[in-house]
Amino acid sequence: MDIFKLDRDAKNMLKEAGNRIRTSFSSELSIESKADANDLVTNIDKEIEQFFIRQINAAYPSHLILGEEGFGNQLEHLEGIVWMLDPIDGTMNFIHQKRNFAISLGIYKDGEGILGYIYDVVLDELYSAHKGHGAFLNDERIPFLEETSIQEAIIGMNASWVVPNDHIENDGLIQLVRDVRGIRSYGSAALELAYVATGRIDAYMSMRLSPWDVAGGMVIASEVGAVATNLRGESLKMLGTDTFFVARGGLHQQILTNYIKLK
Amino acid sequence: MDIFKLDRDAKNMLKEAGNRIRTSFSSELSIESKADANDLVTNIDKEIEQFFIRQINAAYPSHLILGEEGFGNQLEHLEGIVWMLDPIDGTMNFIHQKRNFAISLGIYKDGEGILGYIYDVVLDELYSAHKGHGAFLNDERIPFLEETSIQEAIIGMNASWVVPNDHIENDGLIQLVRDVRGIRSYGSAALELAYVATGRIDAYMSMRLSPWDVAGGMVIASEVGAVATNLRGESLKMLGTDTFFVARGGLHQQILTNYIKLK
Repeated sequence: MDIFKLDRDAKNMLKEAGNRIRTSFSSELSIESKADANDLVTNIDKEIEQFFIRQINAAYPSHLILGEEGFGNQLEHLEGIVWMLDPIDGTMNFIHQKRNFAISLGIYKDGEGILGYIYDVVLDELYSAHKGHGAFLNDERIPFLEETSIQEAIIGMNASWVVPNDHIENDGLIQLVRDVRGIRSYGSAALELAYVATGRIDAYMSMRLSPWDVAGGMVIASEVGAVATNLRGESLKMLGTDTFFVARGGLHQQILTNYIKLK
Repeated sequence: MDIFKLDRDAKNMLKEAGNRIRTSFSSELSIESKADANDLVTNIDKEIEQFFIRQINAAYPSHLILGEEGFGNQLEHLEGIVWMLDPIDGTMNFIHQKRNFAISLGIYKDGEGILGYIYDVVLDELYSAHKGHGAFLNDERIPFLEETSIQEAIIGMNASWVVPNDHIENDGLIQLVRDVRGIRSYGSAALELAYVATGRIDAYMSMRLSPWDVAGGMVIASEVGAVATNLRGESLKMLGTDTFFVARGGLHQQILTNYIKLK
């Protein structure tokens, strides 16, 4: 397999998908709810996933596709080449803001991430990585992350996890809010992963994410030395939902040890 | 006074200040703390405030200046024309992210906002308003805001106010987090005001802001029908710090009545 050609093809699909999303801004959205009232999906999420599936099937008929909107394959294992796609990560932002969303794509070989992409369509910022070859923001290499302290850290975290909830003891997170320099919340796991990779925030956590939300970002984060696991510190299985935690090296273990206690 | 000329002059100053900030990205920052360890200021905050003061003094020697970094006038009243300036609103983002900050500027006559500006330097997005003449994002008019429901609202609010704190009963905010569609936090009062004005979020609150943080944004928000007060529902005095709350009409009163109880 020519991984450099695969990389070029994936980037071309992302750029074309970005064009289609930008074009959609001038037409009216059709919006539905999924699992709960705030889990939204639009016709554009679906159309973009179907666009990728057509392209991938034509160019790489043996590859499998795991997509948020369910038009891909139903997978029970990760053998072979699997494209993990969220056509619009941050659908709520897409609907309300027409910004702060991204296409998230990871290409995995036998369960290991080999290529990763986060495409901020509105800003035309493509974060990408080829395992072992570094991470890039458009054509510029993203520097390796240095360590930082809890006191100087900015954490990406939704306020939902700070209020009493079924997933995590909120006492620890209340203390984290008090100890760090700042808390931010942008509403897109993929973009928050890109923010960690570029050092704009120092950690990001969520109680419930799916493989396609983080598959691309994990390859990128790993190339600059960030550590990504679930909130128990275990490797993500990349099949089914899990908790998620990514941070600079050092900070990752410190936060897990001192602030995180899952229910 | 020719308010159209004043508007053009202010916009020219903002654009030139933006150029200076962008140029500064390639040189090293000098960073200090102010009131507390996370209240940061850089040499660029100071230089940009001094740039505005030189320009304003030369063109409008009778005008007064209220600036975050303290190089302007010490004011005990708001008679005459007062420029209220935060040279970099979101200094923590400026330092950590080189994005998600803005220049915030309001021009007030006898205490009433007549011109307002929020300039997102990195995206080259200038939000502006001339009282009674509408609000604009660059050259495009910002539409008047329609009403929305609590259930569909996205609220800009820092997690610091959801944890037990000295300013507000956090029980009400915990319920707000549960009832709304989403919570976001961007770390710049001026940009969050711009987000409310453009309908990207539906409300924004903070427990402690100064006049220069919100002076520009309040003129803009008012032109599209958003309501801005302190968290007791009172008009802001625009001298000294206060709480702050801005929201679409309707939603403003609903949130104040049902979720806000200051200590």
